[in-house]
Formats: sequence, structure tokens, C-alpha cells
Amino acid sequence: MARGRFITLEGGEGAGKSTQIRLLADALRTAGMDVVTTREPGGSPGAEVVRDLLVNGEPGRWLPISEAMLLSAARHDHVMRTIRPALEAGRWVLCDRFADSTMAYQGFGHGLDHGVLTALRDIAVGDTKPDLTLILDIDPAQGLARAASRRGGEDRYERMQVAFHERLREGYQAIAKAEPSRCAMIDASTGIDGIQAAIRATVADRLGVAL
Amino acid sequence: MARGRFITLEGGEGAGKSTQIRLLADALRTAGMDVVTTREPGGSPGAEVVRDLLVNGEPGRWLPISEAMLLSAARHDHVMRTIRPALEAGRWVLCDRFADSTMAYQGFGHGLDHGVLTALRDIAVGDTKPDLTLILDIDPAQGLARAASRRGGEDRYERMQVAFHERLREGYQAIAKAEPSRCAMIDASTGIDGIQAAIRATVADRLGVAL
Repeated sequence: MARGRFITLEGGEGAGKSTQIRLLADALRTAGMDVVTTREPGGSPGAEVVRDLLVNGEPGRWLPISEAMLLSAARHDHVMRTIRPALEAGRWVLCDRFADSTMAYQGFGHGLDHGVLTALRDIAVGDTKPDLTLILDIDPAQGLARAASRRGGEDRYERMQVAFHERLREGYQAIAKAEPSRCAMIDASTGIDGIQAAIRATVADRLGVAL
Repeated sequence: MARGRFITLEGGEGAGKSTQIRLLADALRTAGMDVVTTREPGGSPGAEVVRDLLVNGEPGRWLPISEAMLLSAARHDHVMRTIRPALEAGRWVLCDRFADSTMAYQGFGHGLDHGVLTALRDIAVGDTKPDLTLILDIDPAQGLARAASRRGGEDRYERMQVAFHERLREGYQAIAKAEPSRCAMIDASTGIDGIQAAIRATVADRLGVAL
């Protein structure tokens, strides 16, 4: 059986990742793929336990290095117990955030050493790297306004200051520039349908499927 | 103010580390030192939260790499928020388990790559390395029998098989051999008083204090 494909969605707060993943999953299923949607932090029982430590509490609860290590511990569990088995079974895996989020948030956002983060990523994921990473790009002011209109208590990252989110956006742009064959920037300032059309066109083009 | 000294106690289950730390703290306080006793995993509020994930549950709950990363995340919090501030305030820090436990348990015990563990250790602790590490050496069968006679539910590590504890002991012996100026092996097969006498003699000799 052919290995499935691994697609990650990345971007700042309020870029619309979860809505877009749901719509992309629908399109891929209509095209006949067996699709798994998952998210980080989390995506496996152990990783969800670690997620609870990360998304709640005060912004300064975890030092940046500890946060990166907790994220990496959860990521390894997620890769080994959810993502890799699904890919080996021929399923397509759509993941809301993955290793690029750690580089963007902890590296570009918090200024943590990029070599440290690359080392942690390599230990956590091994050779399970995304076939395609869609980076939903949006002006932080617009994204944070969207995010604020949602309900829910998991808002530690969103309460960090706007300058942080500016660095985050620049980080994602740098990541895309460094790995253009894996990454695609998607303009997320438009409406839901326009963003989804751009995503489907990119998936069709990069991964050779008709959507 | 002079920096305090950092002493770690290591060894397998039932070696008597917690009793010996308490007695060593008494001796150092009698000699006029300001002493902090702490432990891993744990030793700071964030690290204690991670400890709860590690010491409870089934033996296979965490994959070895995730476990090493969780331990390292907790260690960084402990170092930055408890150990380093205490040392900088001139206090002596006695710690029940530290980075050598991760190398012994996850590296020698579970066969995790030693280079990965060394990288995680260096990221987590920076330059906060022990001045002296006392390794309480005991035959695993004797240690496990002692540990089994204690009460308490935190027994995930103790329920692992005896062969694991044999590898652990060999690991500690290898660590001591590789860093003889930092490490001292203490025969922990004797009684509490004999072990404590050996510990005090070693601390007096290595760190130049009269106990």
C-alpha cells in the first residue's frame, strides 16, 4: 500500500486554520482519499495531556526552553502513535500546526536559539516530515480581531502582545523562503471560500491530485 | 557572596537516597551552611506538574524520547527557578536525582541514544552542573526489596523488570568512570549510618568542608 501524504497547516492566531482543514478534508474525501485530521499540541492521548499544560495558565508559566521541550515531547508521541501509523496505512494526514509552529512561536516569537529548536525537532519527528505545509498568512491585527471574537478559555497565546505576533508572521515568511518546495504561503486575508480555493489549487498542484 | 555548592545524589531504587540527603543536610547545616534540599523529577512548581505525568500510569505510557523530553523540560524549570537562584544566593543545593538519572534510566536502561540525551541535558541545564555527584551503589535485588517494603503509589519505575535495573547499575558505573572528578561511588549495601559516614567523608574530601 502506498504511503499517505502528510499536510500541515500553519499560521498565526485567527488565520482560519481549523475551518480550512475541515473544508480541505471534505474535498480530499470527495476525491476518494482516506483522511485523518489532527492538531498540535495534542493529537494523541499522551500529547493531549501535555497540551493541557501548555494552553492554560499565565503567559510566563513556562520558560521558553521548557515550553519547546514539552511541545517536542508531545510531538514525538503524536508522530509515533497517530501520524506515522496513519501514513503507513495509506491515509492522508491533515495536521493543524506542527514543528514549524515551534520554530515560529518559540524561535522567532520568543527569540529562542534556532539551533536548539532544530535539534529538538529532529529528535522528535525523525524522518516524518510534511509533504506540504500551507502557511495561512494574515495581518496580526486582523487575525487577533478574528480570534478575539471566538469563545473559549484556551487563550494564553492570544493574550501575548501584538509585537510578538508580528515576529511570528515574519518567522513563517522566513520558514517558507527557506523551504519553498515544502511550504506554500496562502493569503488568508480574504473570505473562507477564497482561502479554500487557493488551498485546493495548491494541494492539487503540489501533490498531483484533482480537487 | 560566594556561589553555593551543588551536590546530586544518584542511584537505583531502594539505595536510600532520600534518607541520606536528609542526614547530609543536617550535617552541612550543623557545619554552618545554608542548605536547600530538592529532588527530580520536580523541585519547582512547573516541574512538579510534569513529575505527576511521569511517576504515575503504566510503564509504557511514554515513549522513551518523550519521557526524556518531559524530564528535560522539568529539569530546565527546576534549574532556572530553584537551583540556580539558590546557588547564586550562596546556598548549598542537595538534589535527589538530576541529569545522570536520565542518562542511566533512559540511556542505559531503555537504550535511548546517548548523543540525544547529552544534547537534551546540555539544552536543559546550561552551565549549572553538579560540583559533586554521589552515586549510591547497591545490588538491584537488594534495592528493589527495600523499595518494595515502602508504601506509596508512585511505583511505575519500580515495577519495571530486574534486567532493567541491572543495566541501570552498569550505567551509573560507566558515568562515574567517565567523570571521576565529579562523581563518587558510595557502597549502599551497608546500614544507614555506614553509608552516611562514607558520604560525609567524601563531601569533606572533595569539597573541602569539615563535617
